[in-house]
Amino acid sequence: MIVVKVGGGEGIDPTGVLDDVADLHAGGERLVLVHGGSGETNRVATALGHPPRFVTSPSGRTSRYTDRTTLEIFTMVYRGRLNATHVEHLQAAGANAVGLCGADGRLLTGRRKASVRSVENGKTKRLHGDHTGTVDHVNDALLRTLLDGGYLPVVTPPALADDGVLVNVDGDRAAAAIATALGADALLLLTGVPGLLRDPDDPTTLVRDVDADDPGDATAAAGGRMRAKLDGALRAARGGVAQVVIGDARVARPVRTARAGSGTVVREGGAP
Amino acid sequence: MIVVKVGGGEGIDPTGVLDDVADLHAGGERLVLVHGGSGETNRVATALGHPPRFVTSPSGRTSRYTDRTTLEIFTMVYRGRLNATHVEHLQAAGANAVGLCGADGRLLTGRRKASVRSVENGKTKRLHGDHTGTVDHVNDALLRTLLDGGYLPVVTPPALADDGVLVNVDGDRAAAAIATALGADALLLLTGVPGLLRDPDDPTTLVRDVDADDPGDATAAAGGRMRAKLDGALRAARGGVAQVVIGDARVARPVRTARAGSGTVVREGGAP
Repeated sequence: MIVVKVGGGEGIDPTGVLDDVADLHAGGERLVLVHGGSGETNRVATALGHPPRFVTSPSGRTSRYTDRTTLEIFTMVYRGRLNATHVEHLQAAGANAVGLCGADGRLLTGRRKASVRSVENGKTKRLHGDHTGTVDHVNDALLRTLLDGGYLPVVTPPALADDGVLVNVDGDRAAAAIATALGADALLLLTGVPGLLRDPDDPTTLVRDVDADDPGDATAAAGGRMRAKLDGALRAARGGVAQVVIGDARVARPVRTARAGSGTVVREGGAP
Repeated sequence: MIVVKVGGGEGIDPTGVLDDVADLHAGGERLVLVHGGSGETNRVATALGHPPRFVTSPSGRTSRYTDRTTLEIFTMVYRGRLNATHVEHLQAAGANAVGLCGADGRLLTGRRKASVRSVENGKTKRLHGDHTGTVDHVNDALLRTLLDGGYLPVVTPPALADDGVLVNVDGDRAAAAIATALGADALLLLTGVPGLLRDPDDPTTLVRDVDADDPGDATAAAGGRMRAKLDGALRAARGGVAQVVIGDARVARPVRTARAGSGTVVREGGAP
């Protein structure tokens, strides 16, 4: 059982990942695909006159401020554009994909963080009405039912919060929670870079191995969106997923390439 | 087993139907909900600078011309806005809903009609690149699996055509195909009018009963979007669905009201 996450940021073409997933599915592999969609969401939100707003927390972390209108656009794009067209692509490639967001069958549930701290012009403000949250529980029974039926689940944010509303959740952490809940053999987080880089602009600075018990300076190297990836990878490795790789979505056969260990390998005890 | 379709045209608030469905689900009823979304699709398409284009066939039938851009907007809204927020509403009401479009698990498959005849200024033209189709097959096994697991399936167009692409299909005919495939006890098509009216502007002209074996002038009375509803209703009645009602989505407890026979009842042999 393999959980594959493909990012949705600018410049990431998911086609290679989708085709590789379809091939592996055809070969009998049990797979769950998780995807993002931030780039397309930014484009549609801007076209609809509600451009994205990013906030920076006091600890320096940047996130999307998700008011209800943003949440509805986010859901429309993740669920209705990317999830549906990924399912269409996989179906055309012969894989019987089923798209799900976190609300479907309470697949991904957690807590809502209704307010967020934002540093603006050196001052910290608290913004209310945010629709972001965490993934605390996975309905792995629903995924197993679909996998047993020969289907390929394709999962996307949003999740469902305990107050019954949709919430924006991080796709990498969602994938990690799914892999842990399913007891997956592998979690592959595929993105637009070769893995965790010490210098984000220099692909030769790839961190080959991270010890999940003692990540040390890997945590410091992981800025921006890589921080959520590393965090998800650490949680999954500590949660018992035997192989966790942050790898490159852009290479040929990206799923098999990462499965072969190319990228940043995160495991308990570090390099073997 | 009941299949409920709620329309998505202008002026139809689905809330009453959703709450009634959630109540019946809580009482142990096996239900499938199918929904539309044409009104919201028109709004979003216009906001995105790609306003809807309707064509009139030589037989006088009006339909949405669905080029690929329109299909993607249609899918984004049906799947990502309406389906997801209906699932959110049902989840908040305690029903464990799972949203699906026709591509998921090949739930609704059929043939694509890649061109459409359009009468413009008295001349008939053939428009190519259309993405509409028919529902010829329903994966009822997937629906049964979900129903057996206690889930409430919430189904929306598009469907998946035999050439592997998403196609716009009529929601009423899709609901009829689902009800027939499941051998449902009832198909309730709920909309913004009390049922089939001889005069669309006069609710006192409600047609109480239609004989599915001999619909006679009921067919003539059904213009516009009502034609697809009556067509779906006739197919389901002829396909063995015991109770088929075209009813009002706007009344209190609209599902139970239609189930009690309020609206236009379509059955083989006509009025009992």
